[in-house]
Amino acid sequence: MSKMWSGRFKQGAAKLLDEFNASLPFDRVLYQEDIEGSIAHATMLGAQGILTQEETDILCEGLTKVRKEIEAGDFVFVIEDEDIHMAIEKRLTQLVGDVGGKLHTARSRNDQVALDFRLYVLRSNRAIARHLETLIDTLLKIAKDHTKTLMPGMTHLQHAQPINFAYHLLAYMYMFKRDIERFESSYERNNLLPLGCAALAGTPHPVDRQLSAKLLGFAGVTPNCLDTVSDRDFALEILFNIATMMMHISRLSEELILWSSSEFRFVTFSDEYSTGSSIMPQKKNPDVPELLRGKSGRVYGNLIGLLSVLKGLPLAYNKDMQEDKEGVFDSVQTATLSLQILTAAMATLGVNADKMGAACKVGHLSATDLADYLVRTCNIPFREAHHITGRVVALAEEKGCDVSELSYEALASIDSRIQEDVLACLPLEASMNARNSEGGTATSRTLEQLTHIEQWLKKKEA
Amino acid sequence: MSKMWSGRFKQGAAKLLDEFNASLPFDRVLYQEDIEGSIAHATMLGAQGILTQEETDILCEGLTKVRKEIEAGDFVFVIEDEDIHMAIEKRLTQLVGDVGGKLHTARSRNDQVALDFRLYVLRSNRAIARHLETLIDTLLKIAKDHTKTLMPGMTHLQHAQPINFAYHLLAYMYMFKRDIERFESSYERNNLLPLGCAALAGTPHPVDRQLSAKLLGFAGVTPNCLDTVSDRDFALEILFNIATMMMHISRLSEELILWSSSEFRFVTFSDEYSTGSSIMPQKKNPDVPELLRGKSGRVYGNLIGLLSVLKGLPLAYNKDMQEDKEGVFDSVQTATLSLQILTAAMATLGVNADKMGAACKVGHLSATDLADYLVRTCNIPFREAHHITGRVVALAEEKGCDVSELSYEALASIDSRIQEDVLACLPLEASMNARNSEGGTATSRTLEQLTHIEQWLKKKEA
Amino acid sequence: MSKMWSGRFKQGAAKLLDEFNASLPFDRVLYQEDIEGSIAHATMLGAQGILTQEETDILCEGLTKVRKEIEAGDFVFVIEDEDIHMAIEKRLTQLVGDVGGKLHTARSRNDQVALDFRLYVLRSNRAIARHLETLIDTLLKIAKDHTKTLMPGMTHLQHAQPINFAYHLLAYMYMFKRDIERFESSYERNNLLPLGCAALAGTPHPVDRQLSAKLLGFAGVTPNCLDTVSDRDFALEILFNIATMMMHISRLSEELILWSSSEFRFVTFSDEYSTGSSIMPQKKNPDVPELLRGKSGRVYGNLIGLLSVLKGLPLAYNKDMQEDKEGVFDSVQTATLSLQILTAAMATLGVNADKMGAACKVGHLSATDLADYLVRTCNIPFREAHHITGRVVALAEEKGCDVSELSYEALASIDSRIQEDVLACLPLEASMNARNSEGGTATSRTLEQLTHIEQWLKKKEA
Amino acid sequence: MSKMWSGRFKQGAAKLLDEFNASLPFDRVLYQEDIEGSIAHATMLGAQGILTQEETDILCEGLTKVRKEIEAGDFVFVIEDEDIHMAIEKRLTQLVGDVGGKLHTARSRNDQVALDFRLYVLRSNRAIARHLETLIDTLLKIAKDHTKTLMPGMTHLQHAQPINFAYHLLAYMYMFKRDIERFESSYERNNLLPLGCAALAGTPHPVDRQLSAKLLGFAGVTPNCLDTVSDRDFALEILFNIATMMMHISRLSEELILWSSSEFRFVTFSDEYSTGSSIMPQKKNPDVPELLRGKSGRVYGNLIGLLSVLKGLPLAYNKDMQEDKEGVFDSVQTATLSLQILTAAMATLGVNADKMGAACKVGHLSATDLADYLVRTCNIPFREAHHITGRVVALAEEKGCDVSELSYEALASIDSRIQEDVLACLPLEASMNARNSEGGTATSRTLEQLTHIEQWLKKKEA
Repeated sequence: MSKMWSGRFKQGAAKLLDEFNASLPFDRVLYQEDIEGSIAHATMLGAQGILTQEETDILCEGLTKVRKEIEAGDFVFVIEDEDIHMAIEKRLTQLVGDVGGKLHTARSRNDQVALDFRLYVLRSNRAIARHLETLIDTLLKIAKDHTKTLMPGMTHLQHAQPINFAYHLLAYMYMFKRDIERFESSYERNNLLPLGCAALAGTPHPVDRQLSAKLLGFAGVTPNCLDTVSDRDFALEILFNIATMMMHISRLSEELILWSSSEFRFVTFSDEYSTGSSIMPQKKNPDVPELLRGKSGRVYGNLIGLLSVLKGLPLAYNKDMQEDKEGVFDSVQTATLSLQILTAAMATLGVNADKMGAACKVGHLSATDLADYLVRTCNIPFREAHHITGRVVALAEEKGCDVSELSYEALASIDSRIQEDVLACLPLEASMNARNSEGGTATSRTLEQLTHIEQWLKKKEA
Repeated sequence: MSKMWSGRFKQGAAKLLDEFNASLPFDRVLYQEDIEGSIAHATMLGAQGILTQEETDILCEGLTKVRKEIEAGDFVFVIEDEDIHMAIEKRLTQLVGDVGGKLHTARSRNDQVALDFRLYVLRSNRAIARHLETLIDTLLKIAKDHTKTLMPGMTHLQHAQPINFAYHLLAYMYMFKRDIERFESSYERNNLLPLGCAALAGTPHPVDRQLSAKLLGFAGVTPNCLDTVSDRDFALEILFNIATMMMHISRLSEELILWSSSEFRFVTFSDEYSTGSSIMPQKKNPDVPELLRGKSGRVYGNLIGLLSVLKGLPLAYNKDMQEDKEGVFDSVQTATLSLQILTAAMATLGVNADKMGAACKVGHLSATDLADYLVRTCNIPFREAHHITGRVVALAEEKGCDVSELSYEALASIDSRIQEDVLACLPLEASMNARNSEGGTATSRTLEQLTHIEQWLKKKEA
Repeated sequence: MSKMWSGRFKQGAAKLLDEFNASLPFDRVLYQEDIEGSIAHATMLGAQGILTQEETDILCEGLTKVRKEIEAGDFVFVIEDEDIHMAIEKRLTQLVGDVGGKLHTARSRNDQVALDFRLYVLRSNRAIARHLETLIDTLLKIAKDHTKTLMPGMTHLQHAQPINFAYHLLAYMYMFKRDIERFESSYERNNLLPLGCAALAGTPHPVDRQLSAKLLGFAGVTPNCLDTVSDRDFALEILFNIATMMMHISRLSEELILWSSSEFRFVTFSDEYSTGSSIMPQKKNPDVPELLRGKSGRVYGNLIGLLSVLKGLPLAYNKDMQEDKEGVFDSVQTATLSLQILTAAMATLGVNADKMGAACKVGHLSATDLADYLVRTCNIPFREAHHITGRVVALAEEKGCDVSELSYEALASIDSRIQEDVLACLPLEASMNARNSEGGTATSRTLEQLTHIEQWLKKKEA
Repeated sequence: MSKMWSGRFKQGAAKLLDEFNASLPFDRVLYQEDIEGSIAHATMLGAQGILTQEETDILCEGLTKVRKEIEAGDFVFVIEDEDIHMAIEKRLTQLVGDVGGKLHTARSRNDQVALDFRLYVLRSNRAIARHLETLIDTLLKIAKDHTKTLMPGMTHLQHAQPINFAYHLLAYMYMFKRDIERFESSYERNNLLPLGCAALAGTPHPVDRQLSAKLLGFAGVTPNCLDTVSDRDFALEILFNIATMMMHISRLSEELILWSSSEFRFVTFSDEYSTGSSIMPQKKNPDVPELLRGKSGRVYGNLIGLLSVLKGLPLAYNKDMQEDKEGVFDSVQTATLSLQILTAAMATLGVNADKMGAACKVGHLSATDLADYLVRTCNIPFREAHHITGRVVALAEEKGCDVSELSYEALASIDSRIQEDVLACLPLEASMNARNSEGGTATSRTLEQLTHIEQWLKKKEA
């Protein structure tokens, strides 16, 4: 062996490997799931006569004590313990003596890790769904005040047709509703107990996996142990569902940033949720939506990271799979904090209805309505109607006003077939309310959608 | 304006922009969905009196004619038509005259694109699920012959415990079952009609979206039009579900490549599904699983591609979203072809049970069983049992045999508490069958899992 | 063999595998590189006496003929030929007879593929760099007219300090300059001949790799054959460099989209490079920058795709590596077309200097200058200066004007230490020109940067 | 304001936003760069007369004191300080009083962040390159002992041609050499000072950026301030270069995992760098290469994460860009630790030359040599030679030996044109040494490559 590295590594070898191998610095997050899983496992072993009742009781009490120590901050984690499972088992054995070693009967690190991580992910699915509900509820409250607040509906960031602000917020509520459905669907699909799969092939001990499942609140047990110890689909699913949710949030954030620019001024962030400048008192930077928009990057990265890790791994457990957790923890934490901040920022958002309304007067948003009027009421072929509308727009431009602001006389001067009833079509509010097909922006339809969302939320909370 | 680019671009400008803007080169795949959608739309317009019955009939017949032309290869696509929707509408108008223009009443390109693409994705979900069923059925047939075929179960690519080959294949069947569940879940969640949403705000025409939904087989209509025209969640979902499925396939592929190396020789690909060398007649390259493993890269890329496109887009439609299709088409095509090839290759795979069995004799796979025996039968504490097992392994190594091949005398020479009944535990088959917890590898449990999968498949096909 | 799949696959097996295995549908792009490589190889074989001069001549003439056939469109590609190398060799042999078979002496498919692909990538590096130069030249021409055109410099999409438009364009010129440097650096690093590496270990034939390198314009030969046939670093590099370049383009595109909204109106796209609406004659959608922004997604996907493919591949060639090409072809084509379109769109862009100037009057952009004045000229501590500035801003808001528009009297009414020379600091142009540190926005510094870029460009073209 | 969220957020708002906004938990890593940058900035301000010499001295001493406090662990970071820059400035002001506030003259947070982060990245480029050199040196030492150690060169994980182990290791040395070249190239390209760019437009103070650059060891200054504060190309480059390097490491890891399986046994990890099983004393899990292979996922994720963050951001600084650091820190740390561990594990790796040699006798690796002999020496057309070789392989299979082990008589029995000199071609060592083209596996060529690498390394260290 060469001397070159010996000076550098010899003494440090163990420490270097510890640092490289250990998952304890991040998997300690799982202490609760680990202890709950162990209590359920001990209880099952007791019920099956694999442990005596006394042993079971000692183990369960010991585990409860360890949990209290951790929660009180009295537990000293040392990297040599390698992972949270070892750390807890070691402390348990210190507390209860040799019987601590019996806890690992009919269990392997492989199914134990699979249990803890799956429990964490399942619970995170639920917790994130709850945060999403709170966000939707917040948007709902804002929307109720704005079913008649006109704003320019845009495509290509160009003014297109007048809509109301509640309707715009509803688009996001429906995105977040789909997000909730995905988190819930993933929960249902993966709510199966991994414990009892042992290393990869099951165990010769007469375990009762159904009992363990019941104790931990799972709907059933996983059907094939080899698959179970190498399955991380549940982790990929939450990473994808968070990525999609953060993409939705990035879109809302982009709009909030645009809307709070001096060019738009549609909204004003509260002082609490914006940052100022040391020089310009009137300046407010929309840090919150900017960070929210940026956070999509990291959760995308976490998703692609785990997909890459899993690519081409032979069955069953490989150490590469230890790389499954940090990305998930980071995405879950990002999602949670992002939803809380977004909810708080929206709740305190100032909505400048007058600015939104004024913006509707730019771009002749009711030109389409005029063309529709010409076709429907005057029986003019569409091609000709389009031509007439073009001339009306030119006239408005010339007069420096919006088409919706032209007088009847001005309109009739372009084409005498236009009657006075045209004035009912052109105002922006009329234009908005005319789009009353199912799912449309008309106030009546907007209210219908608000009720739909509200009732769905209530049913969830019930 | 500078001359520099004029020489280069002037004449070519239109052509360059056409090439850049046009989606026709790839979205022509959607011709069927586009025509079906248009027929349903025309029928609804007729039913609502927005078109006359005669107009409706002319349009539907015309559309059917266009479809026939496309399918006969008589339709000449020109890039100037920009996209499949324009190409079809233009041809329709050539065939039926001015009434062709009425087809677009109460419809915008935005909801039309959303409809066509969603229909394509929904159908692809179903088609891929069917291909997965065929693959599982194929694996099931192979597995039935191998519930007693021993092979080394591995962790860290090291021999760990004996399992049977059917059990190993079942791990993949359960992965593919979860894949099917995801495709189906996505189908259910997204099976809602986008048509009638128009540009972004709904339409003033008295459309009946429920009728259109019924005609096209949707379970309902989308609830908010603004969301609808900018929603591509359904596309992200199929990209993710394909990525996860191809990850599973990459794992099976990795194993097939390993197993067909001269170091393993567990399996032999049929001549049809492997490629040879021009020099060495005995050489067979596992091109199929290598390509399958590699295909995970492109579908990962398609997923991250669309996530990136959608990040930070304001509502509603933006031209960036035209980038949604090519990746989805590529992933769907990759998934489809991959499943067909994998199914065919598996169906013709040679399984070398003898090589698998021989490999089980490397690594003292029943050492764990001996330790278990010492604890359970001789009441020896685990720590001591482990020590004894270590000495037995050393003896076997010395004799150049596997632990499972030692005589009773040899075993007893290590520790006299070992009785003759130990011989029932050590054979590899006994070791495998001992792991008979729910989901375990014991042949009885393997058969249970095969029945479970078979019945689930039958129910699906019914 | 089960019947289930036989009906489905039997006859189709060969066809299915052909379709799956064949790279011809995409690698035909490489025909030119393949033929050049073969001509160089034949020439070297001749020079080394491995082939006779006559054989060499026949091969070279035959290859030239094949190229002409392909370029004339007379060459019929059939998928059974599998890849471009086989297709060309087969046609060559048809044309020149059995001697065609000798072309493959001392060559394997592995080094041949590596050569063709590397040549393609090297040339694409150069071609993209040339397109970038044209783009920079175009931006330079625009910028020269706008070194005094004021616009609001932004952070957080909030007005911050006045800058000039040329300076803003220079930021992009410097990004594109770095892009060019990366393409060139990658070219230099990878400009080594792979040919002569054969399958993975070199060849026993007395080849002269230096001669082949010289014939093909490489700077040298790759040093280790095993590495060479499995190296795709050059492909990753171009994918990354394109991804970074498209990220830059996506930023410029975002700004162009914002600037062409009715809220900004800083720029107007020419009719040629925007699309209209069938209803609203004044509407122009910025399709070009939207598509450009969206294109970043696909090139990101191509990068992550190849990184995933290569992860964990053992040496040397594996069939997975056939997945290296489509992503690169797609990224190169996307980059090329994007640069051409962007250059053309910028060249015809209307710059609304008045709108930019007017926007500078929103946000009290010279507040910082006032504070600076108070500190520097009046010797007022910064904290107090900030307080005074705040009161001045409040006064301006009250008067409904910008700080830069206040009279001396108004300013002095806030603090009597303010002297008349303050008026020299507050105008927006003065504020812009005050920032004259190296690299700053002052017109003098902007001109310096323009000269720097211009001279660098000239040197490149020389 | 609704009550719903108030209970939840009111009191906590500040804390929640602090947690969301603060970068201190991760950017404290930059304390050294921040202090060095500030010392250089103060020195320059002093030299330019913007500060007095006394002020400069006080600031520099204060900063040095802060550094000592941090390094002694006496510095208490509180999240309210938001970022490392604020934390240091606040502490400085506590130590030196009001003059601390003058440090920020002619500087903005934007250029300060850009400086600190760029310095960190530049230094990491160099540090990683040094670690790579140590790794190459280690591989070199191993390789020197194995220039004649035969092993099967593989393609498609199938035995192809005999090579030597040193040659195989050289393939990786050349990959790592390219990695070093990329890190160095990135260093050169980005070694420019950002300081003095202020917020986005430069500063009105008479700063001397060239002096600051000189003090901090930069080769020059960045040319455009707007670009500078929003440029993160240097961060993308290190993320990509690390991703590519980890891809190379994942390939070596895959081979090490394969080679340490019981099917191969080409190598044995030292006890220090492998983990055992609690049951099977002979079992060794290759945790180190498994983790190394898995680490590619996270660095891929970090790359795509930052690319996503930057997509579509308008100029100049946006808060999204705060998301640039964690991924880079994680990738740099991962790269560093991975290189150290890999170097140590390789240095203590056992090479089982006998197993490698034995494996060469599987697969008739010299069949190609026989065919070559027939063509070259006996002047037999290649097609016939291939046919004869096929029959020889069949004979060897029948005799249960490798082609290289057949006697002359056996060979001649197949074709009488075969002469006794054929025996010189068939031995595996002869076959390996025959491939002596430049870059080939012949021992002579391998030695040439070793010398090349060694001299290159020596030159670097000089």
